[in-house]
Amino acid sequence: MGTTVIKIGGSIADDVRALAAEIAGGLAGASGRNERFVVVHGGAAKTTEIAEKLGKPQKFVESPGGFRSRFTDKESMEIFVMVTCGLVNKRLVEQMLQAGVNALGMSGADCGIVRAKRKDMLRVVENGKEKILRGDYSGKVEAVNALLLHKLLDAGVVPVIAPVALSNENELVSMDGDRGAASVAGAMKAERLIIFTDVDGFFRNFPNDLVREIRGAKELDAAMEVAKGGMKKKLLAAREALDAGVGEIVIANARVERPLANALNGEKRTVVRK
Amino acid sequence: MGTTVIKIGGSIADDVRALAAEIAGGLAGASGRNERFVVVHGGAAKTTEIAEKLGKPQKFVESPGGFRSRFTDKESMEIFVMVTCGLVNKRLVEQMLQAGVNALGMSGADCGIVRAKRKDMLRVVENGKEKILRGDYSGKVEAVNALLLHKLLDAGVVPVIAPVALSNENELVSMDGDRGAASVAGAMKAERLIIFTDVDGFFRNFPNDLVREIRGAKELDAAMEVAKGGMKKKLLAAREALDAGVGEIVIANARVERPLANALNGEKRTVVRK
Repeated sequence: MGTTVIKIGGSIADDVRALAAEIAGGLAGASGRNERFVVVHGGAAKTTEIAEKLGKPQKFVESPGGFRSRFTDKESMEIFVMVTCGLVNKRLVEQMLQAGVNALGMSGADCGIVRAKRKDMLRVVENGKEKILRGDYSGKVEAVNALLLHKLLDAGVVPVIAPVALSNENELVSMDGDRGAASVAGAMKAERLIIFTDVDGFFRNFPNDLVREIRGAKELDAAMEVAKGGMKKKLLAAREALDAGVGEIVIANARVERPLANALNGEKRTVVRK
Repeated sequence: MGTTVIKIGGSIADDVRALAAEIAGGLAGASGRNERFVVVHGGAAKTTEIAEKLGKPQKFVESPGGFRSRFTDKESMEIFVMVTCGLVNKRLVEQMLQAGVNALGMSGADCGIVRAKRKDMLRVVENGKEKILRGDYSGKVEAVNALLLHKLLDAGVVPVIAPVALSNENELVSMDGDRGAASVAGAMKAERLIIFTDVDGFFRNFPNDLVREIRGAKELDAAMEVAKGGMKKKLLAAREALDAGVGEIVIANARVERPLANALNGEKRTVVRK
């Protein structure tokens, strides 16, 4: 009874009908196995779009480690919650239900399923100088209540989780969707984590040299040195999932005819294994 | 093992800390009984506020029966989902979790728990004339999956349900929170439905003559003749709950020191019984 955790990037969330149909097939035992699915999603770009419409342009910062992230002040957090837990989550749920998947939309904060340490102080690099920003509401995932997720799966539902977690002070905080999905996969002892995005996988020299397979932490670290932006974070998430015992992490293109089949056995993907 | 369904109006959702603490007490068996709670909430006013900020002022219409409602076109529906399922739902969940209630925020659409007939064509009265508006995404609740709600309660969670349902064509539609809560209470064979709002209850001549008790459908219908606006809809919801077999419906003020205790035994409430 293998569990597959699926991350759906915000950029592909508007149309997941093909994927939803494949998940419905997997749940119905089309593969001859009793598969279980948990979905984690993003919504960063949509948040930025709505925030701008609301007259609250978002600020992005770069960490000393080279990762780009949103500076999530109180007002931005409200918008992030509204867009990811409301609009993006329910539109995903609607598509899943239309395909026959018994989707239950929620966030990581509900029932405190995903616990995170609020960063509050963010170390950032601006114009080459390090500085500290305060009042941030983003969090780093520390614990996942896998037992409750398994109970929900036992009840026949497919959790669809928005990227909001509960801090140790019981506040809503944002979480990175890729790394959140990795934590969920690790805690659930998932067989597999699939990170769906809008490119084929990790390219050594984008758009050339797609890397089909990465073996072990050493190769993975070498790939992270080369990767940029969102892909760098996906590889970091893969590293965290690998460390947590997930057997296989796939970064795959969702914009293909059969996204799940491609992620499992196709060409437009990067597989990371121990 | 009695079930109490609680409706929290959007106007009082910003601060439900006192109520959340009482629910936590009830769950812990403070009353000596094993109580179960399901929460349904609103969010109409907040939706109107955010819609205006987004440059999409909301249109309100009156039905031939004298009920005022939102004309929910496609874009308004997106905003309604965003605000009620995102912002309002998660802020309620956050307050519940802070009080120790294991809240699971969701909407009626998730898992198709609340099924509604989409109205699509809305009969409205404008300038004394009846006309038809098309393209509406509001729904009238037709069925509630009480079994799944009981399973969630069995798993130890408290469902907190946003006023969005799933249409028979598997689309997201808005639902009236009061009447949605009545449907949930009826389907779950709840002992009690409490509709929390920002006034004491039904007044024969607001703010004079608070009616403390209404007995039976006949008295209830007479009250509906007199009531206006939101209170008229609350009494309609009470009528629907009564017809569905709910033993006691309470309309109560949430802005008191102990809202739950007041709703059960206090002075600032209207109780409807068979």
